[in-house]
Amino acid sequence: MTVPDEITTPDVMIDVAILDRNIARMASATSNRGVNLRPHAKTHKVLEIAAKQLAAGAVGLTVATIGEAEVFANGGVEDIFIAYPLWVRVRQAERLRRLTETARITVGVDSAESAVFMGRNLGADAGKIAVRVELDSGHHRSGVHPDSAAAIALAAVEAGLNVTGVFTFPGHSYTPGMPPQAAGEEDTILRQAAGALASAGFTEMELSGGSTPTALLGGETAATELRPGVYVFGDAQQLELERCSPEDIALTVASTVVSHHKTGPDEPGRFIIDAGSKILGSDRAPWATGYGRLLDYPAARIIALSEHHATVQWPPGAALPERGTRLRVIPNHVCLTMNLVDEVSLVREGSHSGTWAVAARGRNN
Amino acid sequence: MTVPDEITTPDVMIDVAILDRNIARMASATSNRGVNLRPHAKTHKVLEIAAKQLAAGAVGLTVATIGEAEVFANGGVEDIFIAYPLWVRVRQAERLRRLTETARITVGVDSAESAVFMGRNLGADAGKIAVRVELDSGHHRSGVHPDSAAAIALAAVEAGLNVTGVFTFPGHSYTPGMPPQAAGEEDTILRQAAGALASAGFTEMELSGGSTPTALLGGETAATELRPGVYVFGDAQQLELERCSPEDIALTVASTVVSHHKTGPDEPGRFIIDAGSKILGSDRAPWATGYGRLLDYPAARIIALSEHHATVQWPPGAALPERGTRLRVIPNHVCLTMNLVDEVSLVREGSHSGTWAVAARGRNN
Repeated sequence: MTVPDEITTPDVMIDVAILDRNIARMASATSNRGVNLRPHAKTHKVLEIAAKQLAAGAVGLTVATIGEAEVFANGGVEDIFIAYPLWVRVRQAERLRRLTETARITVGVDSAESAVFMGRNLGADAGKIAVRVELDSGHHRSGVHPDSAAAIALAAVEAGLNVTGVFTFPGHSYTPGMPPQAAGEEDTILRQAAGALASAGFTEMELSGGSTPTALLGGETAATELRPGVYVFGDAQQLELERCSPEDIALTVASTVVSHHKTGPDEPGRFIIDAGSKILGSDRAPWATGYGRLLDYPAARIIALSEHHATVQWPPGAALPERGTRLRVIPNHVCLTMNLVDEVSLVREGSHSGTWAVAARGRNN
Repeated sequence: MTVPDEITTPDVMIDVAILDRNIARMASATSNRGVNLRPHAKTHKVLEIAAKQLAAGAVGLTVATIGEAEVFANGGVEDIFIAYPLWVRVRQAERLRRLTETARITVGVDSAESAVFMGRNLGADAGKIAVRVELDSGHHRSGVHPDSAAAIALAAVEAGLNVTGVFTFPGHSYTPGMPPQAAGEEDTILRQAAGALASAGFTEMELSGGSTPTALLGGETAATELRPGVYVFGDAQQLELERCSPEDIALTVASTVVSHHKTGPDEPGRFIIDAGSKILGSDRAPWATGYGRLLDYPAARIIALSEHHATVQWPPGAALPERGTRLRVIPNHVCLTMNLVDEVSLVREGSHSGTWAVAARGRNN
């Protein structure tokens, strides 16, 4: 597929047929496993995509910030989990309170201190907020060991909050070969926490897990709910983790070859495209082959990235594409790319067919 | 300084007194060297900051995209250099043509092909666009060797464009110890190009150089103009390159300690703050100590970064800051941070005093 003429590069384009297929596949995979799907909307930040996910059976959305929750609640979403250990000051408590007027709101906690602080600032409205205790399943970021979950849950109840479950993000699944082990650890940790909470009198808890690399693995899971995000688009990380195929890539950054590098006769040729870190994002895992991939040229490597330039190393011996050639780049981490544009161009059967606003872009807090 | 109560974290705050001092210092340094200052506005993207730079004597602005030029031209800026080797299709030619109605517009070229293509699409208006030929002074991104400059300039004239000079970005100055060498190479390349162009009949050419790490070095330079950007704010890269001091840091990201890590008795303590890659950006040079710095805690290290979490390693033996503590983070690369927020909070004498819109944020093309 070529880049439609209506698009000025660099810009983000979404193949709607592939997006729809990705949404349907995850909905069916989670349904077959008997677990709820609560997609992480920080990936796309688009109301129209959230609507497709909910229409396909998602029980609600996951977001990372109160600001994102506000955008989706204003857009009519009625069940939103802010999967983050928020430190809720008075201003944020007021915003949470307003959110509960139209939506069921759940918030993460990973300490008794944050539960007590949030409860105090919510005052009489604390009971309107559901909380889930965050667990560390091996990613070693936020979250606690299952042994601590019951004490935090008890503190939250004491603070007037409504404890409804636990959650974890197995972020260590983002390493080649690791998804099965990370999924196993997530399962173990969720089971341990369920046991610990049951002993403290907390039953029928939601047990919520991640992630795109683990959600499609299948098999038994203790989780009652999964929160994958990236699956809607796919990206170069998922491709290089072998969690999706090139045919599953729904989002690319349209770019133009703007410059050729003069290199020595023995050096492979290089050229510059106009998609840099300000649209691709600059995430690069240690195991990544570069700063993204070219969808139609799998042997090419993006070896350097600055704000408005990416340096592409071309396979030795192959003629460089002419200046002005338009190429499709797969970002390494698609969540960052969506957060860098105000709208995206839609492509249906190779033709430009409108735009969507990235409504929750930049809602950092 | 503490984070003013009005700010909900994570958010960007700018100390206006430091910003003003940074603007005055660079204006005075370039004036003392007898070179023009044309600051790169891709760093800040803010009309109010551009006005300060012009009031301090800048001859015009530098930008990276036509979209950025449109924002500043609409804001009344009358001399704008798009320092990028644009590939100008019909739509972009139309936008350039409109820009020339209110501003003097200069565009980069680094090949005869791109000059011919641009000239053809501008048609009878080609002469309204000034062009400068981009040179590679050692960064090995876009730009050509000085030996090729005259041929490109002749092709541009043939295409109807108005050749007014050359430019280069010594991006290899962004490495510890390298600024003096990079500045020397910039100087050599500019001199060589001036000589080559003079032999081809191009005299009184503008010779435009970079960059924040090299602009304050002082000394003789062939350049007639410099285009530093980051100097207005400073950032962790400039700090670790020893190109600015902590007192020069005008922009920080206000953040909150949201979680403590349980680590072993011999391990230094860690905690999580709520400023992640979606506000700090994820640029990290190989020589950087981490994903940014804490302004008030120079011994702390940001050892991991995800979208909404940064993991801070605290000095061994020191008590971790309590949850809810608000800390000021210096991003590694401030240009990316400004591109992630729609507005910034201003701080004067420690108090919140309004906001500025980041008017050219996200103008990727």
